[in-house]
Amino acid sequence: MKHVVVRNIPRGPQEAIAELATHGVATVHEAMGRTGLMAPYMRPIYPGASIAGTAVTALVAPGDNWMLHAAIEQCRPDDILVVGVMSRNTDGMIGDLICTSLKTRGIKGVVIDAGCRDVRALTEMRFPVWSRAISARGTVKATLGNVNLPVVCAGVNVNPGDAIVADDDGVVVVPRLEIAGTLELARQRTEKEEKSRQRYLAGELSLDVVNMRAGLQAAGLVYVDNANEI
Amino acid sequence: MKHVVVRNIPRGPQEAIAELATHGVATVHEAMGRTGLMAPYMRPIYPGASIAGTAVTALVAPGDNWMLHAAIEQCRPDDILVVGVMSRNTDGMIGDLICTSLKTRGIKGVVIDAGCRDVRALTEMRFPVWSRAISARGTVKATLGNVNLPVVCAGVNVNPGDAIVADDDGVVVVPRLEIAGTLELARQRTEKEEKSRQRYLAGELSLDVVNMRAGLQAAGLVYVDNANEI
Amino acid sequence: MKHVVVRNIPRGPQEAIAELATHGVATVHEAMGRTGLMAPYMRPIYPGASIAGTAVTALVAPGDNWMLHAAIEQCRPDDILVVGVMSRNTDGMIGDLICTSLKTRGIKGVVIDAGCRDVRALTEMRFPVWSRAISARGTVKATLGNVNLPVVCAGVNVNPGDAIVADDDGVVVVPRLEIAGTLELARQRTEKEEKSRQRYLAGELSLDVVNMRAGLQAAGLVYVDNANEI
Amino acid sequence: MKHVVVRNIPRGPQEAIAELATHGVATVHEAMGRTGLMAPYMRPIYPGASIAGTAVTALVAPGDNWMLHAAIEQCRPDDILVVGVMSRNTDGMIGDLICTSLKTRGIKGVVIDAGCRDVRALTEMRFPVWSRAISARGTVKATLGNVNLPVVCAGVNVNPGDAIVADDDGVVVVPRLEIAGTLELARQRTEKEEKSRQRYLAGELSLDVVNMRAGLQAAGLVYVDNANEI
Amino acid sequence: MKHVVVRNIPRGPQEAIAELATHGVATVHEAMGRTGLMAPYMRPIYPGASIAGTAVTALVAPGDNWMLHAAIEQCRPDDILVVGVMSRNTDGMIGDLICTSLKTRGIKGVVIDAGCRDVRALTEMRFPVWSRAISARGTVKATLGNVNLPVVCAGVNVNPGDAIVADDDGVVVVPRLEIAGTLELARQRTEKEEKSRQRYLAGELSLDVVNMRAGLQAAGLVYVDNANEI
Amino acid sequence: MKHVVVRNIPRGPQEAIAELATHGVATVHEAMGRTGLMAPYMRPIYPGASIAGTAVTALVAPGDNWMLHAAIEQCRPDDILVVGVMSRNTDGMIGDLICTSLKTRGIKGVVIDAGCRDVRALTEMRFPVWSRAISARGTVKATLGNVNLPVVCAGVNVNPGDAIVADDDGVVVVPRLEIAGTLELARQRTEKEEKSRQRYLAGELSLDVVNMRAGLQAAGLVYVDNANEI
Repeated sequence: MKHVVVRNIPRGPQEAIAELATHGVATVHEAMGRTGLMAPYMRPIYPGASIAGTAVTALVAPGDNWMLHAAIEQCRPDDILVVGVMSRNTDGMIGDLICTSLKTRGIKGVVIDAGCRDVRALTEMRFPVWSRAISARGTVKATLGNVNLPVVCAGVNVNPGDAIVADDDGVVVVPRLEIAGTLELARQRTEKEEKSRQRYLAGELSLDVVNMRAGLQAAGLVYVDNANEI
Repeated sequence: MKHVVVRNIPRGPQEAIAELATHGVATVHEAMGRTGLMAPYMRPIYPGASIAGTAVTALVAPGDNWMLHAAIEQCRPDDILVVGVMSRNTDGMIGDLICTSLKTRGIKGVVIDAGCRDVRALTEMRFPVWSRAISARGTVKATLGNVNLPVVCAGVNVNPGDAIVADDDGVVVVPRLEIAGTLELARQRTEKEEKSRQRYLAGELSLDVVNMRAGLQAAGLVYVDNANEI
Repeated sequence: MKHVVVRNIPRGPQEAIAELATHGVATVHEAMGRTGLMAPYMRPIYPGASIAGTAVTALVAPGDNWMLHAAIEQCRPDDILVVGVMSRNTDGMIGDLICTSLKTRGIKGVVIDAGCRDVRALTEMRFPVWSRAISARGTVKATLGNVNLPVVCAGVNVNPGDAIVADDDGVVVVPRLEIAGTLELARQRTEKEEKSRQRYLAGELSLDVVNMRAGLQAAGLVYVDNANEI
Repeated sequence: MKHVVVRNIPRGPQEAIAELATHGVATVHEAMGRTGLMAPYMRPIYPGASIAGTAVTALVAPGDNWMLHAAIEQCRPDDILVVGVMSRNTDGMIGDLICTSLKTRGIKGVVIDAGCRDVRALTEMRFPVWSRAISARGTVKATLGNVNLPVVCAGVNVNPGDAIVADDDGVVVVPRLEIAGTLELARQRTEKEEKSRQRYLAGELSLDVVNMRAGLQAAGLVYVDNANEI
Repeated sequence: MKHVVVRNIPRGPQEAIAELATHGVATVHEAMGRTGLMAPYMRPIYPGASIAGTAVTALVAPGDNWMLHAAIEQCRPDDILVVGVMSRNTDGMIGDLICTSLKTRGIKGVVIDAGCRDVRALTEMRFPVWSRAISARGTVKATLGNVNLPVVCAGVNVNPGDAIVADDDGVVVVPRLEIAGTLELARQRTEKEEKSRQRYLAGELSLDVVNMRAGLQAAGLVYVDNANEI
Repeated sequence: MKHVVVRNIPRGPQEAIAELATHGVATVHEAMGRTGLMAPYMRPIYPGASIAGTAVTALVAPGDNWMLHAAIEQCRPDDILVVGVMSRNTDGMIGDLICTSLKTRGIKGVVIDAGCRDVRALTEMRFPVWSRAISARGTVKATLGNVNLPVVCAGVNVNPGDAIVADDDGVVVVPRLEIAGTLELARQRTEKEEKSRQRYLAGELSLDVVNMRAGLQAAGLVYVDNANEI
């Protein structure tokens, strides 16, 4: 493994990234052709958080948060720290001190494939973390990893500089060069969904709004009046 | 597999069903002789929801919510949509559009052995869903299942027309023909528990309230003053 | 297995134990040299609870809460009931009646390596429970275990009389004879962290506050300006 | 819960059931339209076992195998004992004594949604068990369940009298009235697969054997010579 | 945490310990009143191994096997190395080199609540390991733990000097002072089971051999001839 | 998502790749600085298989193996088919027909982050598969994915053309451009381990062979003669 910290990473347009957050993780994930979504075990430590920013990546050893300290220095305002772990681990690698530092420096949040602690303090300071566990378990500082190399986090390969969108539905990764295109598709989807919503509120059925009846029939779906007709 | 939608299902007395909700899942489950409870991984997307209604059932393929659209049409006011999946899956099959449609039509909630998305919007519109996961993962519409045939959901066999009771403690299924009897037993249990509660509030011990001392002694339980007497 | 209830257990100084709660689980766990923490699947049934007290222990069979009733009688004000199970089980062994009794008698809370039910009622009465699951599943009263013998709960061996500290970050066990020493170290740690917090709020980096740069360099960490320099 | 033992259950034609085993679980499951398969955590205690027979069902409490003894009496030669549990449990409910009795009486095997023990002895006597765990954990005999009522086992609803087919790929349930039809479809599928196998052995591609190229193209699949053409 | 290696531990009578292995884990666990069994995720790396010996204990950090090297020196012939981990971890802490050393020195096997690697080589040299996972993941040597202090391994508290019995059914721990008593009860149980086995082989039912009919009836079990009588 | 099949991928030197297999997964993983190892839930369907080859990658939808058929055509002799899935799924996507085709065409094996079926037939034909589950569950052919784009499989990002090494210890991925360097380091490690093995066989301790005593002492490890000295 290369024990490297990369100082400069490309960053996408923050205005576009910020707008992705307004469309939400589900819509952005659909706009990307249903790709880029992290595993659903990644949960926010409190409900209602919704952020988008540029990924600064770190790879750490299980039970060891040494590299996170090197990563903090590489974060700029509006970044999101994304942490992968060498093997499955739930130790509390992120807590109130690290998050105080991150928040002070303008970082928007953390996405970590391990544990988070001090969740009450983080909730009170409104600094959001998406993690696979909440655990007070402390970590050591003994093993090197790297910062700003590609890292797999919760099943998705994240390149430093990719956009991260996170809310109550989970975390999605948008490759840097696809941000603009994804935003355009997300806008279209949001607009289209709003029109559909009005029809559903008026009592219409999705079978009609999305025009599914013919397809279901063609596939062989049969309607019967009662179970004993089967 | 039969690819069928059954249009007419029997429904129990909604007044009795609604009263089941006031007794709560734990009490109803006890009143049924400790049967009918779904696995505890089924959790509400927000705390405080408490509903009861008639089960409209659907069986879907993993990653595919096509049949849910056929199922919506079969739901009537006060129904609850119960969704089983052909193999373990956490994809977000239910979101704000489907739930807007369901809510508009008077359906009380959804119980799904898969994932749910748009949970913030659903929370704001107070439309409750019990699911095994929260996930933004989108689904396709390609594979048929069925609607209103018996389905296993979270370990319990649900027949269309059964009563569903769901709250913060989980989800319980009451076979349609047992609704009246279960309600009567639930009332008795609630009444009895209220009496016990007063005695506990007065400082009495369950050993005495439920009269357990003789049984424990007969089974061989020994009291010692200190651990070194063992 | 010995089917015994031990009536008298040693208890630590409640004033010191209560102060442990103010430092929090993460700090107490660190003060103990990173030991004593239960597995992170132990979660509070509602956020914000924070308690510390003396462990009264019980060992129960899966699906059977008989011994809990014997345990209640052994609890005194400021105690915490700690429940281990003979094999993995999530049934709802603790509910509103038992907790009403415990609360009436001054017990601070419950830590149970099984399920909890009636969580809405418990939340309303502000009686905190840390459990591995929420489940309405009822239990029987048929098999003996024991009360106030050592018990493994969520991966930690708990002796009756040990101090328990529990909050949003999890549950930690402090051996009775280590309470005073742990408290002193926790105070020092809290004080030190407060000083560090001020430096982070002023924008300093942990690399400098904790003086990590030399160690990282000595271990072989290399900084490059761009990824293509690797 | 009804605490009942049903003495007489319908049984399907054993000759047809036995032939189902020769087609294997995967083929039978396909012949049923991809239904009836238990969850994949159900594994045989040794490789190579392959059985089919009639389900005698039992429902037991977690950690309690009392009802299995009542169930043994209801088993006849060529039956398979199918055991569901009231809540998730891995205790070793089945061991060499029970299996000695079952084997002596001509029962073909056991399918249990809990644990199995004495696996070395069972392997030596070639009595196959499919279980969710191997565990020496002993059980009590204190709580009633029932025998020969429908039971959910590993996610599938099993009616007494259904056919069970089990091999290295898992366990599938064939409703009694569908045995003949399923067997006919299984034969057709086996025959068809044998023809396909010959073509694959001759080097043909499934794209051609199953004629998939047009469908893939119609769905939008694009072939490029190199990744940089994307 | 105390970073200590204890050089001298008490050991039980090896002859008696060895005889425990002949009775097997399930019988020994029963003889102990159904206590001392590790969680069923502990599995042998190959079938057929059956050992008993004295526990030398080690506590290690996740992803770090440093203390195992200190532990090897404390092992004597007929010992079994028992390894607990500070938080859940599956890394391959034990491999062919460590096991070559252990085997050369007469140690009987390893029980580790983490991962094992080089399983093919270990299988060929017939050195048995019970572990929670098989994983090639390498570990570091950076964090201290301890050797020969009590350790929780797979849910059981193990004191150095306790007897360990391990076979295809799992791993059980016998406290050192209970070895003689447990052996006596195991002998009685084995003898009694052998008598029962003969009766089962002769076709008798456990309902009669263990005399359960009256108890089942007293508890309320009802027999009906057909399901429609319920 | 791009629905693309890439026809031409770079391949590394097969001779070097084949030699990687002789060093084994654990050694190759160490030679890569402890990177590239898939999650330990990936297990071979039978013991003793050991292969190395070039990765042809495929991404499939849960419960849908359509793209595997497109992938087979892109495989050449000595390749290994590596399959990622869009969300967690255990369905049996690979069986005897597909594997007959793959084996006939000279492919060495399959690594799939989903299920495998027909395992008895595959074992008899000695065609190895590493999978996260064994399941007879059939799949549909309805949703496009892609072939020979980078894919995350069991937590590791795999590029088409990377080398795959798989044996009883798991699966490791070697980036194509690191094959030669990794092989050289693996040779050195194997040679060094062989020397160490001889010393262990002669009774030496790893504390001395790897020279760890000074480091342990410097880190603060204390030796005591008996536990009561602590």
